[in-house]
Amino acid sequence: MLLGRAYFPILHVQRLCYPVHLFHSSLKVMAYEQPTWKPPSRRATDPVLEVYNSFTRTKNEFIPREGKRIKWYNCGPTVYDAAHMGHARNYVTQDILRRIMSDYFGYDVHFVMNITDIDDKIILRARQTYLVNKFRSESTSLTQELLDQVRSSWESYVRSKVSSGLSSDAIPPVGSEWQAWAELSIKAADNKWKNEALKRDEKFDMHFTAASRAHTAIQAASDSLRFGQTSAETAQRLVDDSADVLALSLDKKYGASVTDPSLSRSLARFWEAKFFEDMARLRVKEPDTLTRVTEYVPEIVAFVERIVQNGYAYEVEGSVYFDTNKFDSSETHTYAKLQPWSKGNNDLLEEGEGALSNTTGRRSAADFALWKASKPGEPSWSSPWGQGRPGWHIECSVMASAILGDGMDIHSGGIDLAFPHHDNEVAQAEAYHQCNAWVGYFLHTGHLHIEGLKMSKSLKNFITIDEILQRHSARQLRLAFLTQLWNSKMDFSESLMTGEVKNIEATINNFFTVVKALISQARAEESLLDGNHRYHDPERSLTDALCQAQDRFREALCDSFDTPSAVNVLRDLISRTNVYINSRANELDVSVVERVGRWVGGMLRMFGLGEGDPTDLGWGQPSQDGSVTLNREEIVMPYLRILSSFRDGVRQLAISKGDGAAQEILALCDKLRDTDLVPLGVALDDQEDGKALVKLVDPAELIRAREEKRAQAEAKAGKKAAAQELERQKKQQKLERGRVPPEQLFRPPYVPGGFMAGKELSKNRTKKVQKEWGEQKRLHEEYTAWKKGSAMTR
Amino acid sequence: MLLGRAYFPILHVQRLCYPVHLFHSSLKVMAYEQPTWKPPSRRATDPVLEVYNSFTRTKNEFIPREGKRIKWYNCGPTVYDAAHMGHARNYVTQDILRRIMSDYFGYDVHFVMNITDIDDKIILRARQTYLVNKFRSESTSLTQELLDQVRSSWESYVRSKVSSGLSSDAIPPVGSEWQAWAELSIKAADNKWKNEALKRDEKFDMHFTAASRAHTAIQAASDSLRFGQTSAETAQRLVDDSADVLALSLDKKYGASVTDPSLSRSLARFWEAKFFEDMARLRVKEPDTLTRVTEYVPEIVAFVERIVQNGYAYEVEGSVYFDTNKFDSSETHTYAKLQPWSKGNNDLLEEGEGALSNTTGRRSAADFALWKASKPGEPSWSSPWGQGRPGWHIECSVMASAILGDGMDIHSGGIDLAFPHHDNEVAQAEAYHQCNAWVGYFLHTGHLHIEGLKMSKSLKNFITIDEILQRHSARQLRLAFLTQLWNSKMDFSESLMTGEVKNIEATINNFFTVVKALISQARAEESLLDGNHRYHDPERSLTDALCQAQDRFREALCDSFDTPSAVNVLRDLISRTNVYINSRANELDVSVVERVGRWVGGMLRMFGLGEGDPTDLGWGQPSQDGSVTLNREEIVMPYLRILSSFRDGVRQLAISKGDGAAQEILALCDKLRDTDLVPLGVALDDQEDGKALVKLVDPAELIRAREEKRAQAEAKAGKKAAAQELERQKKQQKLERGRVPPEQLFRPPYVPGGFMAGKELSKNRTKKVQKEWGEQKRLHEEYTAWKKGSAMTR
Repeated sequence: MLLGRAYFPILHVQRLCYPVHLFHSSLKVMAYEQPTWKPPSRRATDPVLEVYNSFTRTKNEFIPREGKRIKWYNCGPTVYDAAHMGHARNYVTQDILRRIMSDYFGYDVHFVMNITDIDDKIILRARQTYLVNKFRSESTSLTQELLDQVRSSWESYVRSKVSSGLSSDAIPPVGSEWQAWAELSIKAADNKWKNEALKRDEKFDMHFTAASRAHTAIQAASDSLRFGQTSAETAQRLVDDSADVLALSLDKKYGASVTDPSLSRSLARFWEAKFFEDMARLRVKEPDTLTRVTEYVPEIVAFVERIVQNGYAYEVEGSVYFDTNKFDSSETHTYAKLQPWSKGNNDLLEEGEGALSNTTGRRSAADFALWKASKPGEPSWSSPWGQGRPGWHIECSVMASAILGDGMDIHSGGIDLAFPHHDNEVAQAEAYHQCNAWVGYFLHTGHLHIEGLKMSKSLKNFITIDEILQRHSARQLRLAFLTQLWNSKMDFSESLMTGEVKNIEATINNFFTVVKALISQARAEESLLDGNHRYHDPERSLTDALCQAQDRFREALCDSFDTPSAVNVLRDLISRTNVYINSRANELDVSVVERVGRWVGGMLRMFGLGEGDPTDLGWGQPSQDGSVTLNREEIVMPYLRILSSFRDGVRQLAISKGDGAAQEILALCDKLRDTDLVPLGVALDDQEDGKALVKLVDPAELIRAREEKRAQAEAKAGKKAAAQELERQKKQQKLERGRVPPEQLFRPPYVPGGFMAGKELSKNRTKKVQKEWGEQKRLHEEYTAWKKGSAMTR
Repeated sequence: MLLGRAYFPILHVQRLCYPVHLFHSSLKVMAYEQPTWKPPSRRATDPVLEVYNSFTRTKNEFIPREGKRIKWYNCGPTVYDAAHMGHARNYVTQDILRRIMSDYFGYDVHFVMNITDIDDKIILRARQTYLVNKFRSESTSLTQELLDQVRSSWESYVRSKVSSGLSSDAIPPVGSEWQAWAELSIKAADNKWKNEALKRDEKFDMHFTAASRAHTAIQAASDSLRFGQTSAETAQRLVDDSADVLALSLDKKYGASVTDPSLSRSLARFWEAKFFEDMARLRVKEPDTLTRVTEYVPEIVAFVERIVQNGYAYEVEGSVYFDTNKFDSSETHTYAKLQPWSKGNNDLLEEGEGALSNTTGRRSAADFALWKASKPGEPSWSSPWGQGRPGWHIECSVMASAILGDGMDIHSGGIDLAFPHHDNEVAQAEAYHQCNAWVGYFLHTGHLHIEGLKMSKSLKNFITIDEILQRHSARQLRLAFLTQLWNSKMDFSESLMTGEVKNIEATINNFFTVVKALISQARAEESLLDGNHRYHDPERSLTDALCQAQDRFREALCDSFDTPSAVNVLRDLISRTNVYINSRANELDVSVVERVGRWVGGMLRMFGLGEGDPTDLGWGQPSQDGSVTLNREEIVMPYLRILSSFRDGVRQLAISKGDGAAQEILALCDKLRDTDLVPLGVALDDQEDGKALVKLVDPAELIRAREEKRAQAEAKAGKKAAAQELERQKKQQKLERGRVPPEQLFRPPYVPGGFMAGKELSKNRTKKVQKEWGEQKRLHEEYTAWKKGSAMTR
């Protein structure tokens, strides 16, 4: 087929050279042979995609199992706290790899990610938060008893958490922690001493800081109590400042009593939502399929059962453990393929098992839990082994199998998860599927350090995604990650951000600004249409530079996603193009520049750096507030949902209540205006004609205006009430004047037409009295009516 | 490298298992060996891209010369008239191939296209237009002289243009054309006769129509002159109706005097601008590099000189011809590689040479002009051979070489250009570059017929792009082209557009509407978070269907861009997904549906069918007027005005009518759904739970659905009314039975407890009469109540 040689029956082309009748009669078919065509030869240097594979710790050619489709499972977060820079690096980097695979190499990718929402950390965090909050609300005054309780908690904390960082001779004997603390504090101020402690326990500083804070709080509370300051506020300040310390001992005492499963669940849901908010702000694409452990417990139970059946797991007191020795010694399997040197690393193994695990009865210290019997205070599901919950590693084996079947092309995750998590996950799945290559390529993203140090809360270099996005844009962060190899350790520093990253960003921005200005100028001038072309040696040379850049860019990405080199290719091409632009001035061929601009912009967008309309030249402008650019539908739908649900409400009301709904309908109308539409920035200004004026405004302003309006309304209501009261009093005074009937007020001789001092009243006087009589009569009638009325309304 | 076996120096993992000092001192490096990793095996069935190559008339594996870069030259239009459906098919189809190559297969494409703005057709059109306009403005009154001049032009026209379609015995002798015309007209009414004429000259009908029109105009003018009607208007009407006829003779007489080069140039510029306007409306991407012949004349001269130097061309009287025999007989070259059977087809060769060519002195009738000496009235540039202009074929050889160098991967163009244009172009370039594979793959797009016939002005089936876009959208046209193989003859018909194409479009629109509504509903309800996953067998099966569709889609495009099959893959997947959606109802996993939707939308956008934000799910809504991006306010305001006025209505009603408003509120709700929201394309589907599903759909479709619903409702209402009337009549009949009070019906002795024939009634009889009395009493009471009620409601 490659050396094509085609025979073409002449019948089809008769129109071209022969009279029709010649062939209609004879139907003779003649063949014309086309000359031999030689296919072009493939360039020997053309790169193929290789990826750094943790199974081999080298780069392997990437070959999916099924054509150009990639089944990909990515380890998602355990959701119990805010996502931080480590998460940012991990998930943005994986997002970049995913985009390169689908948008550059053209693979059809199925990207699956899990959410770990059953975990000892989640259980503990939920339980402790609940217990500390409860304890705080019960601490209504500062008492000696409270103080003693906190101090005792503090002592336990120091003993169990701080001591592990101390050399054995420095550990204070039980009961003498308080005395030893001053000395410890002095030592801890010495960096060298502290570094020694950190080597013994990397969390030393965090625990030491918590204990110190509580120590100070206990001393302050003790002083307060001495001076008789026992308010609830004082008590609660003590609890707040000792929260970490109290959490530990309260949980020890009461943890088992916290049985409400919704505590863990709502904590996980909350942080999951926050996580995806952060990811959206970082422009990380949502996974194609998302799985949650809580939703896959029955599948996990069945999976574990099968592993037991296959002989690679055993039950001990309601827990099920993986038999690592049995697995490792079987002919077809190998345990810890990713990090064989970590086999038997007990620290790592223990950490993998979780803080709430009880591992007595295991056949080997390397065996890990597939299923954990739940103690009181721990969420549980029923299983053939009693109430329990899944181990950490099993979830990924099960959910990946549930979605992707009996194997996948790529598994990705942070390098810190390689052992034991991923090694155990692989072992479980291979024990279940009875295979030995469940994952084709294991891609581990590198560690992230901050200013040269491992990120940790105690080192004060712990940065949440929320915090970092206040300092740098999502684009800048992604650029920073792109300048690093995905699988290398990265040192994130302010100097990287304010130096290299801002430089790259400015270079790219300037470039696109210039290119767009040139295009717009050329179009305005129609300078292309002056009868001369502008495609000479400099243009050919720039076109060649673009070709070379395209080759080098592809080589870089084929070389295990070498994004730093790929970014450099773009930078070099930009500077090459700038030189061209500056040197050519009016001789410039704008179409060559435009082509470079389109390609550079396209590649930046491919990396996920683009904003706005992806077909625009360039990479768009990031919106100021980090919000995602919305399309028409995303803009309109929230309004429509409100409109629709308002209508639903009115409709349901009218249907269900028949004719008794007017007041409720009015309340609905006000709710729409004052509650629903306010956060969308829609102001409905009710007008006298009953038709509201619709305005689109800043939601913040609207909220402010609503608050003001409420305050004004309250003030006005107050004033009105005062004025009404005054009016009422005045009116009452006036009415009171009519209390006396005219007959009593005007007794003879002062009755109209009467006499005064035996003497008939003068005409004038009579007139006046008559008028007054009439006036009083009117007043008295009003008074009587009012009395009657107020009696009725009472 | 494939069988990776990696050695990992223990130094890097010291933290994990060994005390630090052990190694710091000795720096001993130990190696841990990872287990052997076997790369996945490539699937044997994975397709490679093959394209139908005119050089072999078969499908060849596509191999670019340089990695993943494609140098591509596409034959652009000769700009002298409005672009028509043939252009639409050609350029949209090439745009589709270009998008598949860059956006699906991920090649870095350099797409070059020329504009032919030097051409005999352009020169003639510009000159004739100028001369006829001049003649018209000089014809200020109808005279015998004018009439004679037009009639003489008419006679020349019949002789030179109409006669070629007649059999030799039917050609009227010179000077007797006018007498012969009546007879000819009668014959031309006979279809069989006309078809014979068309066989002799395919333009017969066009010329005959022009001559007939002029014939009628001359007769009418002759009458006018006889009756003394000689106004300028009458004269100009004669000129207008004889324009084609006059153009020929005026050009013959005065053509050589028209020397202003700007006439050709401005005609070409005008139609070039129109062409790109049409292309933009058809969503055809602009070429990366655009070349115009007028801008490359010096390069053409140099190119021709080199061919002469290389011995493959010769000069004759200021023209330069390609020596086809010399070329064909050389060892390294072959002439007419694309259509060897067309060698020596003089009709095609002549047409290629143009109407203004003078070919005397050529060595062979197959030799074609590289450079044409210009006669007076023809634009010219200076050259070593005197004033002249480029031949038609040379431009592409030169400009493609100027931009792409000494070879290219793909050359594309319409199949009608294969011979002689492309064969000559290839020969020239190979004679210049001294190579024999200047073009790797030659892709020819197929012919377009309209309603089964070749498109031609004389057949009244000539359709400009402007006209077709008034009847169908750019998306519908592109869909129509996608349903055909790019290199097959296509029959464009109204039934194709109103049948298959509209069906496909509606299927896709409905699908995206439903998917988006489901996603929006799921997000609003957060139904994903109920603690259950929804990924079971039906979801796995739909995921498998997606995988298979992705494979089949890739196979189709690898099979020489088989877009009809690819479109069918998408349609099948949509209907498969619709079945899933309908069968799963509340059990539906929206993420699987979303993934299908995203992929289908992505592929449709890849074909160039997308509108609006390319990252949106779906393919966007084509803007009615061709574009204009709206801002958020313009988008939202119409919805908000409706929302607000609905609310106003409800509110006013509740205020003014108090508690009697339920029915009217319901009517309002229906009006919102059925009247107000319809033109905005919002469908509110009322659900049983009282919460409407909000959908954004095509307004036209919604209006159609509303009409249908109304018709159904009317039919139903008619039925119901009939049923009610029947019911009413039955009821009335029943009630009428109670018209007579029991006292009247049961007169003594038939009253209960009464006598019959002087004899007391039997116990049984009494019982029966008593029962009947009671029954009639009840009926009569009902009757009375009904009478009373109907009197009140009257």
